[in-house]
Amino acid sequence: MLGRTYDSQVCSIARALEIVGERWTLLILRNAVFAGMTRFRDFQLSLGIATNVLASRLDALVDAGIMERPPAPDRASAHLYVLTDKGRDLTPVLIALTEWGDRWAAPDGPPIRYVHDACGLPVATSVSCARCGQLTDPVGVVALPGPGMPPDRAARVALHADQLLADARS
Amino acid sequence: MLGRTYDSQVCSIARALEIVGERWTLLILRNAVFAGMTRFRDFQLSLGIATNVLASRLDALVDAGIMERPPAPDRASAHLYVLTDKGRDLTPVLIALTEWGDRWAAPDGPPIRYVHDACGLPVATSVSCARCGQLTDPVGVVALPGPGMPPDRAARVALHADQLLADARS
Repeated sequence: MLGRTYDSQVCSIARALEIVGERWTLLILRNAVFAGMTRFRDFQLSLGIATNVLASRLDALVDAGIMERPPAPDRASAHLYVLTDKGRDLTPVLIALTEWGDRWAAPDGPPIRYVHDACGLPVATSVSCARCGQLTDPVGVVALPGPGMPPDRAARVALHADQLLADARS
Repeated sequence: MLGRTYDSQVCSIARALEIVGERWTLLILRNAVFAGMTRFRDFQLSLGIATNVLASRLDALVDAGIMERPPAPDRASAHLYVLTDKGRDLTPVLIALTEWGDRWAAPDGPPIRYVHDACGLPVATSVSCARCGQLTDPVGVVALPGPGMPPDRAARVALHADQLLADARS
């Protein structure tokens, strides 16, 4: 885990990356979320990584509450790796990463299309403002201090945000 | 860069992570996108990482076309690190990661709130279906093979997707 590395960062991005930022972890989660994988051997065959690396990543996901490890219903595995709600809730992150990769790193076209299971139509992520609706240009997003930001840091974040908000209105 | 590590993966998530999946890279981009940072020294002070690591990450971002390195307008730095469109386009990924961290790893409340610069109201990401609108439960997203998927792999992805789509309709 990256925990100690990002400790100085009061930031939900840093906290998220401590949990899912290790090499291979988001690809393991991709396979669980979109390919329905639950077995060690399936993850291993699909990703082609060393078993000790895979075991370490899966253990970390279980420790972080992103996967559970119920007994397998057959004798092909000792147990399964099953996503929790916390794990399934990473779906929007995985889709947003896919969309960026599709736009900037898929010269042969998108390898995957996401559709809604109930109707089969395309699914996409968007950034929306509570008043203005969907933002076509997400550059107009400003970060303000939230309740979890220590006061000394909050002042610095607020100062920068005030400048950006003033610029946008002038 | 993680390039060679994920080479076997025909996947836009893997391609995206090859570019932004290195340790610290998404936090550097967070500071560029939301704090407007452009100077080596500011990144270094904010993140507290070794200068050789930071230099390597910034070089990789420039090589990947996520940042540009124009000359600085003053003598405080030799040059600046400025986001390109490709870099700014990571904003939705950063917001989605923040939201997940806020929900699952922010016991003191969100450290940051994102607002729209034009109106100051909250901004959030969502997953929407082209027909059904915003999905409250993103678990109902199925991955189908896209144009960039090699045929042998496409068949396997399609088989799993067909099963999920049939299940959703039964």
